[in-house]
Amino acid sequence: MRGGIDLGGTKIQAVVVDDASALLGQARLPTPTEGGPADVSEAMAAALREAATAAGVQTGDLTGVGVGSPGAVDEAAGTVSSARNLPGWEGTFALRQDLGGRLGAPVKLGNDVQVATDAEFQLGAAREYDSVLGVFWGTGVGGGLVLDGKPWVGRGSAGEIGHVVVRRDGARCPCGRRGCMEAYAGRGAMEARAYRLHARGEHTVLFDIMRRRGRERLTSGVWARALRAEDPMAVAIMARAIAALGAGVASAQNILDVEAVIIGGGLGVRLGEPYVARIAAAMQPHLFLDARPPQVRLAALGDLGGAVGAALLAQPA
Amino acid sequence: MRGGIDLGGTKIQAVVVDDASALLGQARLPTPTEGGPADVSEAMAAALREAATAAGVQTGDLTGVGVGSPGAVDEAAGTVSSARNLPGWEGTFALRQDLGGRLGAPVKLGNDVQVATDAEFQLGAAREYDSVLGVFWGTGVGGGLVLDGKPWVGRGSAGEIGHVVVRRDGARCPCGRRGCMEAYAGRGAMEARAYRLHARGEHTVLFDIMRRRGRERLTSGVWARALRAEDPMAVAIMARAIAALGAGVASAQNILDVEAVIIGGGLGVRLGEPYVARIAAAMQPHLFLDARPPQVRLAALGDLGGAVGAALLAQPA
Repeated sequence: MRGGIDLGGTKIQAVVVDDASALLGQARLPTPTEGGPADVSEAMAAALREAATAAGVQTGDLTGVGVGSPGAVDEAAGTVSSARNLPGWEGTFALRQDLGGRLGAPVKLGNDVQVATDAEFQLGAAREYDSVLGVFWGTGVGGGLVLDGKPWVGRGSAGEIGHVVVRRDGARCPCGRRGCMEAYAGRGAMEARAYRLHARGEHTVLFDIMRRRGRERLTSGVWARALRAEDPMAVAIMARAIAALGAGVASAQNILDVEAVIIGGGLGVRLGEPYVARIAAAMQPHLFLDARPPQVRLAALGDLGGAVGAALLAQPA
Repeated sequence: MRGGIDLGGTKIQAVVVDDASALLGQARLPTPTEGGPADVSEAMAAALREAATAAGVQTGDLTGVGVGSPGAVDEAAGTVSSARNLPGWEGTFALRQDLGGRLGAPVKLGNDVQVATDAEFQLGAAREYDSVLGVFWGTGVGGGLVLDGKPWVGRGSAGEIGHVVVRRDGARCPCGRRGCMEAYAGRGAMEARAYRLHARGEHTVLFDIMRRRGRERLTSGVWARALRAEDPMAVAIMARAIAALGAGVASAQNILDVEAVIIGGGLGVRLGEPYVARIAAAMQPHLFLDARPPQVRLAALGDLGGAVGAALLAQPA
């Protein structure tokens, strides 16, 4: 039995799985918004304890626990640095040792997007392929790569597909640069655009839906509802996002020539197949091998892919 | 002793090298502009015969001959298809068998840009690295990849960096698509832009230099001379090309996170180090890991890299 933890900016998802990666228990807790890395580590431990309880075991019984983390992960050193969407985590924190102590089980660290890609490759929508680009479409747009059956991480930071340039001197990205795909397609940038257009007097139901559902952000569910209501602003912002995804993912494909592209992430999973088809169609005019596009598939593991992928890190070698 | 042939749209470069890839003889012939694949194959054989004579041997003495080819290369079948910049080569031609018969030596085929990248990786500017992106900047912009010490070709067509999108709905590319990097940075597109601006009445010395030097195209040498003369049109078109290369190559780096980027090709080799530095500077604002840019180096093997890389294909396994 193994544990897996997907450490996100808004929530911590923990799972306990058996040796075949079948789910035995799971739990989700909000990510602390105050304090520092040790507080986050304790919340991660609490989430995994809950998942273990659901599975009828204790965390000390697990043969290992994998963590998919944002920020710069140093797997060898067992540290996470510059996780800027987590509280007080600008520096370097020895997460492997700290969390291992709390759980009484060995911990392995990996990059959040990479482990989610590995999960789709080993267990999900990309099982039948040897080369895969995972595109995780949420607040930002992250990417993970499997090439010739093995993760490709470069010098440790490969897959930053959100920061492929789709328009030189284009829109300002949350990363501070200009014209990145994420500046058009990231949910964070889409929300910022909705606020700007709304402030200029353009009508939208996006913020009404947000308030009615007790949200403080334009979540994937809020977008899905506004799109279903054919809200013109939501439709226009989404069309712009999909055009950017088409150009950026096609650019990546022109470089990599992988067999399959898997679309996951909060927005990808929530909007599902029809939007995967729209992304594939938006890629088509930019594909160099247009007669032979890659397979474009929806992530099969949904919200749990990150945590199940993290648990893969804890497999015996 | 091995042979190598770089089959280009304007010239055929042949080399004979020893087991350590040291040059023993070389020859260059123009690529036939009429006829069909068999005529091109005979011109390739003629170039290699000349190189062999310079090395004091006959082609039948060679242990093998490698070919770096444009178009779609099927290494297993020994065929080249859709080499559209070669005369009458829209279909599929069994180049391995045909050329092998003419030379009396076994022939191996590879992709032109990939073999040039391998040459820089094994013998040239990228020797000290494990992961490399080769950018070949000439009439078009081609790319080759070495990841973890091995060529990465995807399903056979990876590395099409010239068709990374740098501006959605941007300039028309020679490939027919819009906004590709090559639409701004390929020498073919740069020449087309110079003709358009000139036709509109803008002054330039580009075409004067071309005629004076007896050329029919704006060759890399013509561009180099016009830039040295600070011709405003040449300077402006080049600035636009470099901005596009900066965005496109940085996009590739954000996906791949390689150790080194090698800049070669006709324009890259001709313009040399100062322009490699300009490309590196143009990449900087688009690099996600801006504090840790890749090494950006000039190709060390110059004009012969393609042929020397092709000869590597004929190494004993």
